[in-house]
Amino acid sequence: MLECHLILLGATGDLAMRKIFPALYLAHQSKLLAPIISAVARSKLDNETFQDNLTKKAQEYIPNLDPQSWGLFCQNIRYLSIDLTQPDDFKQLQHRTLPNTLIYFSIAPEFFAMACAHLAQVGLNAPGVKIVLEKPLGSDLQSCKDIYAQISKYYQEDQIYRIDHYLGKQSVQNLLELRAKNPILGALWNKEQVDHVQISVLETLGVENRGGFYDTAGALRDMLQNHMLQMLSLIAVPTLKNPNAQALRDAKLSVLKSLKPLDFQAFVKQVVRAQYGSSDGLKGYTQESNIPAQSQTETFVALKLEVQSSMWAGVPFYLRTGKRMGSSLVQIVLAFKGGGALILNLQPQYTLELNLKGVPPLQAHLDQGMDAYEKLILEAVRGNPALFSHQDELEAAWAWVDPILKAWEQNQVPLFTYPAGSFGPKVAFDLLESEGRSWHTPKDGYV
Amino acid sequence: MLECHLILLGATGDLAMRKIFPALYLAHQSKLLAPIISAVARSKLDNETFQDNLTKKAQEYIPNLDPQSWGLFCQNIRYLSIDLTQPDDFKQLQHRTLPNTLIYFSIAPEFFAMACAHLAQVGLNAPGVKIVLEKPLGSDLQSCKDIYAQISKYYQEDQIYRIDHYLGKQSVQNLLELRAKNPILGALWNKEQVDHVQISVLETLGVENRGGFYDTAGALRDMLQNHMLQMLSLIAVPTLKNPNAQALRDAKLSVLKSLKPLDFQAFVKQVVRAQYGSSDGLKGYTQESNIPAQSQTETFVALKLEVQSSMWAGVPFYLRTGKRMGSSLVQIVLAFKGGGALILNLQPQYTLELNLKGVPPLQAHLDQGMDAYEKLILEAVRGNPALFSHQDELEAAWAWVDPILKAWEQNQVPLFTYPAGSFGPKVAFDLLESEGRSWHTPKDGYV
Repeated sequence: MLECHLILLGATGDLAMRKIFPALYLAHQSKLLAPIISAVARSKLDNETFQDNLTKKAQEYIPNLDPQSWGLFCQNIRYLSIDLTQPDDFKQLQHRTLPNTLIYFSIAPEFFAMACAHLAQVGLNAPGVKIVLEKPLGSDLQSCKDIYAQISKYYQEDQIYRIDHYLGKQSVQNLLELRAKNPILGALWNKEQVDHVQISVLETLGVENRGGFYDTAGALRDMLQNHMLQMLSLIAVPTLKNPNAQALRDAKLSVLKSLKPLDFQAFVKQVVRAQYGSSDGLKGYTQESNIPAQSQTETFVALKLEVQSSMWAGVPFYLRTGKRMGSSLVQIVLAFKGGGALILNLQPQYTLELNLKGVPPLQAHLDQGMDAYEKLILEAVRGNPALFSHQDELEAAWAWVDPILKAWEQNQVPLFTYPAGSFGPKVAFDLLESEGRSWHTPKDGYV
Repeated sequence: MLECHLILLGATGDLAMRKIFPALYLAHQSKLLAPIISAVARSKLDNETFQDNLTKKAQEYIPNLDPQSWGLFCQNIRYLSIDLTQPDDFKQLQHRTLPNTLIYFSIAPEFFAMACAHLAQVGLNAPGVKIVLEKPLGSDLQSCKDIYAQISKYYQEDQIYRIDHYLGKQSVQNLLELRAKNPILGALWNKEQVDHVQISVLETLGVENRGGFYDTAGALRDMLQNHMLQMLSLIAVPTLKNPNAQALRDAKLSVLKSLKPLDFQAFVKQVVRAQYGSSDGLKGYTQESNIPAQSQTETFVALKLEVQSSMWAGVPFYLRTGKRMGSSLVQIVLAFKGGGALILNLQPQYTLELNLKGVPPLQAHLDQGMDAYEKLILEAVRGNPALFSHQDELEAAWAWVDPILKAWEQNQVPLFTYPAGSFGPKVAFDLLESEGRSWHTPKDGYV
């Protein structure tokens, strides 16, 4: 049972309530983690009131909550009212400087620098103290660098754990393990055998209550730049002989740096941006709450890119992500030359599939394993950086994405519309079909 | 709808009733074949009596027999009482010399030569007439050659269709098609990726009512020399660019000729013969009816062989077959280096499986397709030799098997005993386990 002191900044927030506390509770219940939790937020609450609120949320978000083990878990939670702008408030944490301290930043990035400075004042940046940062980490290359410049005044890179819950999912990690364990996959995992790769992250949800934030981000920043390029880098790394965290980070970074830059011609041909319009009783994006009527923010991106490594040169990678899609789908497809494909479905079902021509798909249902947040928090407590992104990776991803953002800002590329509940605009299908390929699923359903 | 005149020698026999007539009926019912059938046997029956007997058997062997379509099928069956030793009897067939004639030899091989001579006398060896031979075709290399020498006086090799119903099964053929259609399988189908190959043909049945015949044959002759070496040759052929019947036959022959000959040391180390003993209320082999109490006939063989081709050199092929096994299993396993396997199960379920380390097996249930006999008869009528063995192949298989038979006759190798209902003697497991491998399934169950 791993002991740690977890300082959670933003403890009253939605993410804390929906994901972080449930993950901590599960890890505690499974006897993997014995956390002493300092729950930090600005609200002037006493510990009892906070705990009452927390328990109400837990009953909502944790299925079959066991009151007794929840009670045990809560005994080690202490609420501290801290205004991030008030250095003196942080003194409350001074007396809780315990070994193996993890500080979870579940707060907006604009407060990162201030929080770091004030934490450092009370010694909470000592070597061994780790910080966990929730995305978004920047909105372009420059802002990403700026945030890092602030944080790195107080924390070394090896103290920083950047959360990407897609990387906590068993499934994506599984791909790496699977390749390491199965040399035959290595024999298939290259440009000789692979015709192209597809990554789809489709959501049926719209922007929900995130409209204000989402409209400043869009699908490219919110999903593609971070999650999807991370997924891509995990697919595209060579099979590592010694897959330690450092080797993996280096390999992922190398993939991200080898993404072929897009020029103007490429934007037009290879990048599709689109926004959902109203359809069948579903609101259009600009009718959602907190979205300006003239918003040009994309809720869908599809693009083709190339990894210019010796392993993948010439193999197209097609990525697409969108909101208000016809169905939820998170899927990685390695389509083989001559037909057939290896498919990892993460949503709606978690399955691994081998499609061969002439027989039905060979399929296995996989074990979801532990909750992504639970896993990531445990790994951070253990000090294992393998599932977290390095600043270099973030910067490489932003460096590749930046020109697209710029081209869009200047409206060099049309913003297409697709009906809410469809699978994106026709041009996103044409992107593959013009090359004799097609999105693996769904095969139809667009208008 | 293919028309043909089918002369069935041995029309009152068990195989005819259980397999051949049902297959013909199914092909007729599916409107694939319009056969005029001359049902030939020695018994002095009139057509009506024969048809009555046939219908009774059909009701037993054909599930959900439709009386109306059965009646239509039977209209084109005519029973002819012919004693194979009486040339004059064959004159009854003279008037039935129709186009596209197929003569099915469902008779003991000792009558082949005589039947051929007498058929030839009435012109039933004209070019275009095809004969279908049921195994066993010889009991060693010499007898196989002798039978052929007799037959080939009257029929050219391209008129001869040797039935091996294992080759009629969709499944084994599927392997070839699958490889042809899926280049990625080609990338795995070689000594670089494959650690070893396993072929298992396990039956829960004992010798049943075939004791008299079986005791003169044994598992090596009855199953391994023909069916299993054919299965092996289909696995081991290279992926053919132009997979016509001739190219396939040549490739199979080349595999059989490249089997590394076994010497005395190899017999002792690599070949296990065994006989089932009584166990748990099941009779031992020598207690079965028509089996001599001192019989040394094997009911189980397990052996390791090597295909000395550039594709497979150094890759062990393990074959095993037995009666009175713990369960029925017909299975081909390509075990990959570093773990994982591609598995084709033919019995008890027809599935294709990819086992990877670290995930559950990826599995697909395949379509059995048409009955093996139905398929083989249709292919013979069509004149497609792809699913039939060439005399050269038989001789190559016998040439490889002969030294084992001789060593056994001379009792150079022990005859092990295994309990009826088990999975063979321990030495058959040791054969693989001593090399750090194991039979794929069942993993345990032996004593």
